[in-house]
Formats: sequence, structure tokens, C-alpha cells
Amino acid sequence: MRTQVAIIGAGPAGLLLSHLLAAGGVESVVVETRTRDYVESRIRAGILEHSSVELLKSVGLGDRLTREGDEHRGIYLQWPAERHHIDFHDLVGRGVWVYGQTEVQKDLGRARDAAGQEVRYDVRDTQVHDPDDPYVTFTVDGVETRLDADVVVGCDGSFGPTRSVVPGRTWERTYGYSWLGVLASVAPSTDELIYAWHPDGFALNSMRSPTVTRLYLQVPADTDIGEWSDERIWDALATRLGHGQDGWKLTRGPITEKSVLPMRSLVQAPMRHSRVFLAGDAAHIVPPTGAKGLNLAVSDVALLAPALVALVREKDSRLADEYSDRALRRVWRCTHFSWWMTTMLHASGDEFDAQLQLSQLRWVASSVAGSTGLAENYAGLPIGF
Amino acid sequence: MRTQVAIIGAGPAGLLLSHLLAAGGVESVVVETRTRDYVESRIRAGILEHSSVELLKSVGLGDRLTREGDEHRGIYLQWPAERHHIDFHDLVGRGVWVYGQTEVQKDLGRARDAAGQEVRYDVRDTQVHDPDDPYVTFTVDGVETRLDADVVVGCDGSFGPTRSVVPGRTWERTYGYSWLGVLASVAPSTDELIYAWHPDGFALNSMRSPTVTRLYLQVPADTDIGEWSDERIWDALATRLGHGQDGWKLTRGPITEKSVLPMRSLVQAPMRHSRVFLAGDAAHIVPPTGAKGLNLAVSDVALLAPALVALVREKDSRLADEYSDRALRRVWRCTHFSWWMTTMLHASGDEFDAQLQLSQLRWVASSVAGSTGLAENYAGLPIGF
Repeated sequence: MRTQVAIIGAGPAGLLLSHLLAAGGVESVVVETRTRDYVESRIRAGILEHSSVELLKSVGLGDRLTREGDEHRGIYLQWPAERHHIDFHDLVGRGVWVYGQTEVQKDLGRARDAAGQEVRYDVRDTQVHDPDDPYVTFTVDGVETRLDADVVVGCDGSFGPTRSVVPGRTWERTYGYSWLGVLASVAPSTDELIYAWHPDGFALNSMRSPTVTRLYLQVPADTDIGEWSDERIWDALATRLGHGQDGWKLTRGPITEKSVLPMRSLVQAPMRHSRVFLAGDAAHIVPPTGAKGLNLAVSDVALLAPALVALVREKDSRLADEYSDRALRRVWRCTHFSWWMTTMLHASGDEFDAQLQLSQLRWVASSVAGSTGLAENYAGLPIGF
Repeated sequence: MRTQVAIIGAGPAGLLLSHLLAAGGVESVVVETRTRDYVESRIRAGILEHSSVELLKSVGLGDRLTREGDEHRGIYLQWPAERHHIDFHDLVGRGVWVYGQTEVQKDLGRARDAAGQEVRYDVRDTQVHDPDDPYVTFTVDGVETRLDADVVVGCDGSFGPTRSVVPGRTWERTYGYSWLGVLASVAPSTDELIYAWHPDGFALNSMRSPTVTRLYLQVPADTDIGEWSDERIWDALATRLGHGQDGWKLTRGPITEKSVLPMRSLVQAPMRHSRVFLAGDAAHIVPPTGAKGLNLAVSDVALLAPALVALVREKDSRLADEYSDRALRRVWRCTHFSWWMTTMLHASGDEFDAQLQLSQLRWVASSVAGSTGLAENYAGLPIGF
């Protein structure tokens, strides 16, 4: 089997890349280890930057997003007894959209179905070979298939097989805490996300829809989820989010999903070796604070698609040669921002840190420069900035 | 002996406080462990914030400062191959002044002489007693003197005796590095300060006058100054400051003073116990990056003087009761800023940190919000903000 671009991974990065390549007249085949059901139902991010939304709309993927998604002007930043609204629209003229990654995934899946895109789900033993003249092998029901391609793109996350054929360096940071995330069948208690600093640890009040609330608690990195009953979770959320302060109430409801998310930062560079490219989580992981992971995947493929169109159709390698450096500039910007949001909001156990955090939060909330710095990074920089 | 306010320490905080109290009609006596020569010649900070200068000018201490000091519009922020000017005037409408702490000290000494201020230098065994009805004891040539006062103020630094009679908490942070500081008899190679990030470690190119350059190198915390010959110092400065880049040259000259400055952050709270108050380094230490130490001493006494005038003359304790909280708000703002500048610019030995630092420096230099955040903190917030 032969195609122009072999894409490893059918998450948002892989499917969006196939969509953008098709729009540029380049054929691709996508291979994915998981089943389609699994990929379309796994709970991930839920915040889209302004420029991610603009890109999705510009390629026909914005209809349901603008109909069912929820545009937010900004976020709330809070610490005990104080809650401040940071209005991104007022500060930088753009906001963010709440629209689950699962929904983006379904929209992409339908759009690729309609275009007749070949996506092979549930494959095994995927391997990438010979970066100079690449091909991919995988098995389906024990039968090996070989997929030859002009170019291979790894959109297969940090545990996927493509990273290992792209030599380079990695930078990594682990944090001493994780997030305990829950989905609850209850109307959100807030109109926009609440990022809450608390001596007990960080809490985040997010949402998925008018009837589904998404909530997170900072927990130790080695947390056993069995120790967190629904009641204990709601009690901790109520304390950290300030239930009862100034009349604000956290409404409880049935918890339908519960998981512990590790927190780490990872960057691999370069993001290309010969005719093999990396995009999204395959090249970089950010902690979820600040919601950059999905948006970085979108900005990677937004840079990569035109580079591959020029490379494959016109044998013009200029954009392809620039891809890694250009993508990494944004990757490091977002890596820094995610680290900054994370370390500003999470209890480290050090009391000097706690005072620095409070001083910084007060400055961010009270200084136009401070809140604009948060807003421009959170609402997102232009693609290719 | 009796006075209204006994001031421990004749550094800038102590002498400025006596000056401001006298202007408010309150008498004080200052006692100091060191000799006047020592106090007036010790090398310390050299950057005055806009509001420190305004305060000094408003109480008759600005003549020589405005004549001999050098007003700077901003600073240079640099990393290998890039140097950016951060123009505080353009960003926040105010700059800073280069004027050595030794000069402020001399101006204060002369002004207090002219007013007949009693300052006892070279005393021994200073002790503060009975915070509710305070008095100070000290010896001169072996003879003990007792100084009774309505109020005692410790302007005696973090190693002085006053801190110990003010119960409370301390928060402290040490850093794994120090500054090797030198004075050189050579015209500065730059018109404004250069803050330089370099993989070998931070360097700072500052100045004292048109003929005296002040330079600093990040060195390990346990550095033996004997290992740093003048040549080694100049070579390291040339490398880190980018001698030869874009035609810029670091001019060498005779080194006249050489010392290692430890880096630490310390905050003590509250800054008052009964009728004993703390101001300046007695309550808080910042690392020198960002030049906040002297300016915080000025802002402390600018808040404290009117509070003591009201307390002593009118028995009105309202401002005195607010003093610690109001001062500490600025102290923590500057503690955070100093920590931020320090950790953004110094090599920690961790390669992930290095990439975060570079990403942050690029953002600060390229984003108006980023550079405005630096400018408003460096040029300084209004006193009593």
C-alpha cells in the first residue's frame, strides 16, 4: 500500500492533519492502535484557543463548535476570600471556547468519513522504518501490512512508536502532584472556569456542557483513587473553591467519571528527522493547567500541513525545513506558560512558595500588565506567531 | 536620656526616618554599632526607583542626586546573540536613577548634621527592652547608656538586635549561587545596565559614575574569592556580556574592590510588636537582582514616619496599626519580583530551567505585557500602592 503521507495516530492532531492535507490536495492514510469508540470517548481537554477555533472554522469544522460550544470571555482567578475575573476580551480582544476534545474528535471523524479518508483503527505492532525513504508496518488480525509513504508523521503521543526514530534531545520536568479529575452530571456552578489557589492545594471548576461539570483537585502524585470517595471529593472541592463565600455555592451531583492525571512537562527537539515529522503530544507534553495540550497539537499541524503540501506536491522543502524551529518556538512559549500557571497555583508544601504565589496572584489580578500577560498566553498567540 | 523615637541603625533607613520624623516635629536619637566612616563607605545598592527619588527630593535630599545622579530610561535584557532595550519610560512613564547608596548615605549624614540630629556611632552591646514601654541600652567606651523612648524602631538589618524582640514568623529562601561584585576604575561600557543571561551564569554590567564601573558575576554560593583573579573575572565578564557581539566591547580597567555577595530572600512578619517597629533589612532581605533592597527601606520609612508622628504627637494609633500590613504588601510584591528576576536570569544547572528562562526572556522582550510587567515592578510602584 502506498500513500503520500502516512499519519500515525488518529487523535485530533492526526485527523486534523489528514483533513488539512486533503484540502491541500495531498492524500494520507491514518493508522491508530485504539478503536474508534475508544478514541472518540476518551476524556481529554476542553478549552480551545481563539486561533484554534478560527482554524477549525476556516476548514469547515466549526459548525457544531459554534452552535454547541460556549465562548468564554475569560477565567476567574481566586484565593481564599478573593475571586477576580480576568476578562481576556477586554484585555486582548479575544477569548476561548469550551468544547470538549471528544466533540472535536467526533467532528473530525465525521468530516474524514464524508471525504472517504482511510483510517485504520485497532492496528497492532505499528513501526516506522527508514526515515530517509520511510514506510510503516502494522498488523491487523495478525496480518502484517506495509504502508509506503513520501512522508511519515507521528501524531501518536509520547508513548507512540514514532518518537524513537527521531533522534534528538528531550527536556523533562515532573511535578510532585497530580490532578484528580471528575465529571459530574450537574449544571456547572459557574459561568466561566474558576482557577483556585488554596493552602490545601489547587482546584479547578470547569464544565463540558450546561448539564455536565468538570472538576479537578490537586492530589499527591502517588494518589490511590480508591481513597477518594465522592463525598470526600465534593467536600474538598467545596473547601478549596470557597463554597459559601459571598453567597457562592458549589452544587453537587452524581460523579460519572473519576481519574488521576499525572502532571509533567516534556519537549523533544528537533520535531523532524529526514522524512519523519512529529506533531502534538508525540513531541511535547504540558501539564493541563492553562489548557495548552490540544491547542499546541492544532498549531503544530497548522504549520505542518502547508509544509507537507509544498514538500510532496512541489518538492519545495523550505517550509518543511523551518517546521521544527517554528513549532518549537510556540511549544516553549506554551511550555513556559503551562509551567508558570502550574507553579503559581499548586501547593508545593513550601511556605515561602505559598507567599510568592499569593503575591503573584494579587499582582496578576490587580495589574493590567499582569492580567494581560496571562490573557494573551491563555487566549493564545496567533498561529505562526 | 529620653527621646520620642529611638532608632537603632544609622544606615539609609535609620537616617531617613530621623529626617522624616524631624520634618514632622518628632525628635529622635539614632544609635549605630559601626563608625560613621564605615557606614558612609560600604558599597551597597546603586539604583533608586522613581518614587524613592521623588520622596528624597520632596524632603530636601534631591539636590546632589539630581545633579550627580544619572537618570536611566530602562535596562538592557540580553542572552547569547540578542540584546533588547526595555524602555521603562515608554512602557510606564517613569525610570530609575543610578546613584550609589554611599552617596545617599552621605547626603543623609550631612542633612542630619545640619539639623543637629543626635547620632551615636560606634556603640556596643545595643539591646532593646520592654516593647510595651521601651528603652534601649548600649555602651560607649565601656560605659552603659540607657535611652528611653516612646517608640523604638529597628533599622538595624537582619543581624541587628531589634528583630529578636519582635515575635512573629520568618519566611526564607536561599539560592545556590552568589554574586561576585567588582568596582573598576574605568568608564562604563554601556549607557544603561545590562542584565545578561548566559549558560555559564548571570552577569550584570552596572555603573557608579562616568569613571567607575560596577560589574557582577554569578558564582557558586561557596566561592573562594581567591580563585578569581582580575583576569579571570574580566574574561568571564567578556564572555557572558557578549564582548565582540555586534561590535560591542567591554572595556577593562583596574579592579579596586572585589567581594562575594550572598543571595537570599527573607521576610519577617509582623513588622511591629507593641511600641517596637522594624523597617528595611531588619524585616526583609531580597537578592540584589532587581535592586529592591534600598528602595524597600525607603518605602518602609515613608509609611512609618507619618504613622509615628501621629502616634507620638497625637496619640493616634491608626496609621501605626496599619503599618505592618501596608508595608508587607509591598515587601511581598518586591520579594516576588526579586525572586522572579533572580530565577529568570541565573543558571540553576537544570537544562529544563534554562529553556524556560530563555522562553520567558523572549516573551518579556517581545510582548508589551511582558516588558510592562518588568518595567512597572523595576521602576517601582507608588509608595503606599
